[in-house]
Amino acid sequence: MELLVAEIDRLVQMALAEDMPWGDVTTDPLIDTSWQAEGRVLAKAEGVIAGLLVMERVFLLVEPTIQVEVSARDGQPVVPGETLATVRGPAASLLRAERVALNFLQQLSGVATLTARFVGAVADLPCRIVDTRKTTPGLRRLEKYAVRMGGGHNHRFSLSDGVLLKDNHLALLRAQGKSLRVALAETRQRIPHGLRIEVEVETLEELAEALEAGADIVLLDNMAPPLLREAVALTRGRALTEASGGVSLQSVRAIAETGVDLISVGALTHSAPALDLSLEIY
Amino acid sequence: MELLVAEIDRLVQMALAEDMPWGDVTTDPLIDTSWQAEGRVLAKAEGVIAGLLVMERVFLLVEPTIQVEVSARDGQPVVPGETLATVRGPAASLLRAERVALNFLQQLSGVATLTARFVGAVADLPCRIVDTRKTTPGLRRLEKYAVRMGGGHNHRFSLSDGVLLKDNHLALLRAQGKSLRVALAETRQRIPHGLRIEVEVETLEELAEALEAGADIVLLDNMAPPLLREAVALTRGRALTEASGGVSLQSVRAIAETGVDLISVGALTHSAPALDLSLEIY
Amino acid sequence: MELLVAEIDRLVQMALAEDMPWGDVTTDPLIDTSWQAEGRVLAKAEGVIAGLLVMERVFLLVEPTIQVEVSARDGQPVVPGETLATVRGPAASLLRAERVALNFLQQLSGVATLTARFVGAVADLPCRIVDTRKTTPGLRRLEKYAVRMGGGHNHRFSLSDGVLLKDNHLALLRAQGKSLRVALAETRQRIPHGLRIEVEVETLEELAEALEAGADIVLLDNMAPPLLREAVALTRGRALTEASGGVSLQSVRAIAETGVDLISVGALTHSAPALDLSLEIY
Amino acid sequence: MELLVAEIDRLVQMALAEDMPWGDVTTDPLIDTSWQAEGRVLAKAEGVIAGLLVMERVFLLVEPTIQVEVSARDGQPVVPGETLATVRGPAASLLRAERVALNFLQQLSGVATLTARFVGAVADLPCRIVDTRKTTPGLRRLEKYAVRMGGGHNHRFSLSDGVLLKDNHLALLRAQGKSLRVALAETRQRIPHGLRIEVEVETLEELAEALEAGADIVLLDNMAPPLLREAVALTRGRALTEASGGVSLQSVRAIAETGVDLISVGALTHSAPALDLSLEIY
Amino acid sequence: MELLVAEIDRLVQMALAEDMPWGDVTTDPLIDTSWQAEGRVLAKAEGVIAGLLVMERVFLLVEPTIQVEVSARDGQPVVPGETLATVRGPAASLLRAERVALNFLQQLSGVATLTARFVGAVADLPCRIVDTRKTTPGLRRLEKYAVRMGGGHNHRFSLSDGVLLKDNHLALLRAQGKSLRVALAETRQRIPHGLRIEVEVETLEELAEALEAGADIVLLDNMAPPLLREAVALTRGRALTEASGGVSLQSVRAIAETGVDLISVGALTHSAPALDLSLEIY
Amino acid sequence: MELLVAEIDRLVQMALAEDMPWGDVTTDPLIDTSWQAEGRVLAKAEGVIAGLLVMERVFLLVEPTIQVEVSARDGQPVVPGETLATVRGPAASLLRAERVALNFLQQLSGVATLTARFVGAVADLPCRIVDTRKTTPGLRRLEKYAVRMGGGHNHRFSLSDGVLLKDNHLALLRAQGKSLRVALAETRQRIPHGLRIEVEVETLEELAEALEAGADIVLLDNMAPPLLREAVALTRGRALTEASGGVSLQSVRAIAETGVDLISVGALTHSAPALDLSLEIY
Repeated sequence: MELLVAEIDRLVQMALAEDMPWGDVTTDPLIDTSWQAEGRVLAKAEGVIAGLLVMERVFLLVEPTIQVEVSARDGQPVVPGETLATVRGPAASLLRAERVALNFLQQLSGVATLTARFVGAVADLPCRIVDTRKTTPGLRRLEKYAVRMGGGHNHRFSLSDGVLLKDNHLALLRAQGKSLRVALAETRQRIPHGLRIEVEVETLEELAEALEAGADIVLLDNMAPPLLREAVALTRGRALTEASGGVSLQSVRAIAETGVDLISVGALTHSAPALDLSLEIY
Repeated sequence: MELLVAEIDRLVQMALAEDMPWGDVTTDPLIDTSWQAEGRVLAKAEGVIAGLLVMERVFLLVEPTIQVEVSARDGQPVVPGETLATVRGPAASLLRAERVALNFLQQLSGVATLTARFVGAVADLPCRIVDTRKTTPGLRRLEKYAVRMGGGHNHRFSLSDGVLLKDNHLALLRAQGKSLRVALAETRQRIPHGLRIEVEVETLEELAEALEAGADIVLLDNMAPPLLREAVALTRGRALTEASGGVSLQSVRAIAETGVDLISVGALTHSAPALDLSLEIY
Repeated sequence: MELLVAEIDRLVQMALAEDMPWGDVTTDPLIDTSWQAEGRVLAKAEGVIAGLLVMERVFLLVEPTIQVEVSARDGQPVVPGETLATVRGPAASLLRAERVALNFLQQLSGVATLTARFVGAVADLPCRIVDTRKTTPGLRRLEKYAVRMGGGHNHRFSLSDGVLLKDNHLALLRAQGKSLRVALAETRQRIPHGLRIEVEVETLEELAEALEAGADIVLLDNMAPPLLREAVALTRGRALTEASGGVSLQSVRAIAETGVDLISVGALTHSAPALDLSLEIY
Repeated sequence: MELLVAEIDRLVQMALAEDMPWGDVTTDPLIDTSWQAEGRVLAKAEGVIAGLLVMERVFLLVEPTIQVEVSARDGQPVVPGETLATVRGPAASLLRAERVALNFLQQLSGVATLTARFVGAVADLPCRIVDTRKTTPGLRRLEKYAVRMGGGHNHRFSLSDGVLLKDNHLALLRAQGKSLRVALAETRQRIPHGLRIEVEVETLEELAEALEAGADIVLLDNMAPPLLREAVALTRGRALTEASGGVSLQSVRAIAETGVDLISVGALTHSAPALDLSLEIY
Repeated sequence: MELLVAEIDRLVQMALAEDMPWGDVTTDPLIDTSWQAEGRVLAKAEGVIAGLLVMERVFLLVEPTIQVEVSARDGQPVVPGETLATVRGPAASLLRAERVALNFLQQLSGVATLTARFVGAVADLPCRIVDTRKTTPGLRRLEKYAVRMGGGHNHRFSLSDGVLLKDNHLALLRAQGKSLRVALAETRQRIPHGLRIEVEVETLEELAEALEAGADIVLLDNMAPPLLREAVALTRGRALTEASGGVSLQSVRAIAETGVDLISVGALTHSAPALDLSLEIY
Repeated sequence: MELLVAEIDRLVQMALAEDMPWGDVTTDPLIDTSWQAEGRVLAKAEGVIAGLLVMERVFLLVEPTIQVEVSARDGQPVVPGETLATVRGPAASLLRAERVALNFLQQLSGVATLTARFVGAVADLPCRIVDTRKTTPGLRRLEKYAVRMGGGHNHRFSLSDGVLLKDNHLALLRAQGKSLRVALAETRQRIPHGLRIEVEVETLEELAEALEAGADIVLLDNMAPPLLREAVALTRGRALTEASGGVSLQSVRAIAETGVDLISVGALTHSAPALDLSLEIY
């Protein structure tokens, strides 16, 4: 995983502190500290795995002597009953780590799984499935990683690294009587030279205006496939085209077939159900 | 909200740092710092709201002069088009706060909305809908609050404040040849006197054993309604009964009709889709 | 110890930063970095030890190559002159770690020692000595652990995990004209199902009211032994009984002989003198 | 108070997080958020107050609308029944803040009170009572402040700001065959020019050696008064003299009468019992 | 300033903690807390100011009642003797805040001043002066802001938001036998669609290869002006051109005259001398 | 290095988080995680090295398996082309760590190098070169260490550990009609007994007053060498003498020849240019 271990550990510590602020009132009196055990992390549903390193860090931060043998890799499709990892060590520590380890792995695998469904639906078309900034507060790095593990691509990570004029920006420009052309020229004067400029449009007229103003990318918001097709034709390769708004597993293929370059899907991160997993100790 | 503002602010700062590590490359060059604007937070779907104070803190931590007028209250059902809050202040600051404010409110309202559906399905029955520890890492306090706003109840918050012997604990006891009766007696000797003891069972035999061993609460895991009904009868009020495992909006009523006291639903927090909301600046 | 090492390390780092913000102006110029040394942690007074793992972490966080050989265990009674641990490594690092290591161990052993005295005074009676929330800010986890090492039991850890209506709560209910019966019923409707409810009472009338209202535990505050005896009789096992207020080593036995189930002692954590220990380097 | 409010707030937040990780399971369901109340912080024992600002910050960080009217000042002697502060605001918030506010104030006032007793015992003699580094981990700034409020003086704050060669340093020098004279000369070459050098001695021979080697201050460790008197005579004002070791309220006056300039007392911070205080809500 | 106040405050708190860990041993005993004073922040050298808000936050975080009247604005040229701000409040607090406030303002104004010199040297040419990642650890946000205040532009902020293949990347590709064309194609497949790709080259051959491989921007490293001129001609507008390496105030104009689009200067942030400023209290 | 590794790591983590908030958009898609590489850290200019341990920690915190072989030591003079360290490990990790590792080492070596120039200029004279509190916010510990590595000495570290009455303090005393003699006496009554008192003076009259008032050290501010010589003569060893103000490499020797004991130089830390270093991967 391309994240610093220190960053992962920071999130894991936060989650552990939340789940065990001052000991485990069940395990502490019940399970002798000398008992050793072994456990298996199992898939209980079909999906794509993401976050195995995070899971491993949970076990190691609870107890450094736990041995974690990972038998899958992030991005891999799994089936129910498949063993993802084997853990060995003090029984009490395995029990204390279980829920936090699974919570991370279930949530990230949920994102990867939903992403893989969208990607699979358009696999034969030259179109990227991309995420949005509609992520879980605090977990954006991990969720955007999970999107990549599901075969998707990342949109900008934050407000700091991608220029995107949305409806609210444009409404303000209109209210101030500032033309898009002037606004884009001024913006390009000030932003780092490695960044392209993306502009949201809702009609073909707005699209024409954005292209004339020099947008590098156009975000075609809430357009039905026929209108998207017209928009792609009107753009004629002068800009990248991104479709957004109300994209579902039912609609994504029709949208991709219009020829857009990118389809952004907020649901990948804000509404992905967790993938069902469990730890079986024996 | 019963959370310390300092705790909310800690989460909000984490989310803001994530979304704007070093400025907003769109708004900074585009929107003059002197421009003022007004915006409305709107519901775009039907649901139950939770997290309005968190949303308000996001705006205030981005810019303390923003005026936030909240026109709904947590726990309130909303319909599409309904205004939840009005915000007024520097346009650039409203734009910078928008996404993080909505991310919190959408996620927490999603949890409240799904909870309310489960609660509504059993509203006339004497049965609590309770959450689990299957929460989003870092957001447990907020998500458990959202469950309450949706009409649900909280199970234990963490490993530190509720005694629950689960299947993995019981497997270890069996492997060590330790009887449940002895284990519970020893546990009760050591835990704080204000805590009850809950034991997971999967069969009527295990239920009988748990009751004899003195369990205060029994977790009836993955039992179909007919078996649950038998379990409730066998328990005869000697312990509280909690049903868990595979609970859906389809199955929850049948489960509640068996007479169990509590039904725990992991999906409330691990798989609730976000509630659709937006900010319209004008 | 049932605490996460990460949590211990957080406290140790805080203490080290406090004691050595930018180097050791005595040791840095005086002690050559190549000098090795050995030292012994010695008891200089009679008591019960607690916090050996914390002491060990101090040495290791100052210098990971220090070898710490612990020759006692938490909860063990010690006599003056007894060696608790041997440390070997760079002399300069041993000197830098000494004070912080001893500060933790002295304070926690002080709590364990005082607890053991109270526990010893009632050892043959069926009565728990329990702690309170009157702990040192920041060290509650460690101090409550030390209480257990001294043979005591923990009361609730925080406001979040134990229901206790104290005099100030009851005064407010009275001022609002709300009966205890109604208040307890409403509270039970909302709290997690694994928690019992405790109510403070100062007279037999209040005790009768609390029992009728359904209190699971009654806190008999500042009652002299004869009154406590009456209170226990009146309770007749319908609730657990806890005595509190002005408990000293002189009075604790007489209190325990009244038949109360628990005696809570604030002094265990707020007024325990440190146990005298030292590090001898040779 | 000469501490940054930000530093105080950091400690208060840590203590609040510890005492209320996710709400107050008693107050939240019991006390209506609209109820207002007033309370008095009262002394229940005789002593010297320290930490009123810390107490105030606790209330304000729980709820910024609480009004805190402080009617005492740090360093002031108080008698049982005396009102130290009045607080007004939402009843639920007063209840949530109560214990943490009192914990800080009780502990710091305990330190100030014990210090004042030592200071009072030698008030007519030209001798400072000074603290040590034997402080509660995390609270050194506050405890050293409390020592000043009790009329005592501070020794060095940490290893970084005072040069003190203790027995363990000297043992290492001897083991390495390095003379104290050379060691002090080398040390003086390297330390900041504003710092004096203090050397611990246990016999008159060691004292003579330290004075010849150029010590600015000598720490006379564990010497009985007659020996201390000889040591003071031998020193003849060439260095400041500090007595330490086994200083109690019984022995402190005899020690001061030997003519030493300073007496350091570890018990001021490691063994001061809390001052009894309470909050009465009405 | 486009930074969140919370982010500025985090840095200010870190600096204050560093400069005053436990009080001010000069001011605390010397300056009565009731004394009020007024002071002026003065320029003592010619330069460009940056960081006035940071300076203001230092005073306010030391003491919220200090009144700070700022009479300059970031980006403004100043002359010796010019008043930048007036501060009024408790004298002791002004003294405690002085050094940290000036340290921030001097360092950031130093960066802005040096940047302005480079920008001034090429002001009539269509060429941007841009910064690098050679910034002071921990202060990158502030230093990049100061570059903008001096009239410069920002290059990428971090490894996360700009694609730049440097000599070490290219050496590795060569060692692995991977062509630049293939490498760029694969990279473009994976990076967010809003980012351009920049490639470092040291010769015209490498430049030709980079252009053919599809680089959007070329970094012409350590080329003398005549070679730069050839490189610009060879590029023919197919990519942006950036010159870097050994740029000084002496050489920058000749480099700009070659027609490059951007000149990056590490010295802006790693070697800018502080601007001389002072606080005069009266 | 006499700093705790934990403290170094805290600064390194801050710098890494700043430089790579969510991955490396160049290296992640370009460099296969299986590729291994070796690199050399090289001096590209003449200077004195400081910060090798910090550099090593950067590599290890990015990737614990990187092998760092350090071939120089802090305080050592280096020449262009000299190898300071060799690093081996995953190529991608070396690339990610490169800039942060060099930023620390370049900045600290810059401070050591400039310090060594000042120290060299007065090497044969009995005069210390000392630093000031004009340090980079957040890096004071490291920069003061680098001063020592360059052969300089440290002045006080912070406001908490050195008493220095500066012009602003004295102006306030005058405004309040308080004599320096009284002020110093009162101050000495309250400060820790290990601290000396330093007073800033600008004229011989002020010097005479400070000496009479009992200053242990006098700071002779902005005096030309002839006046300094008179000041030294007037002092006659009754106090240490420190010269400050406008000290440059040109003027430092003449100042030292006046016989002052110390010369403080703000530029050591606020205006030292970075030492040019590079990492060559092969």
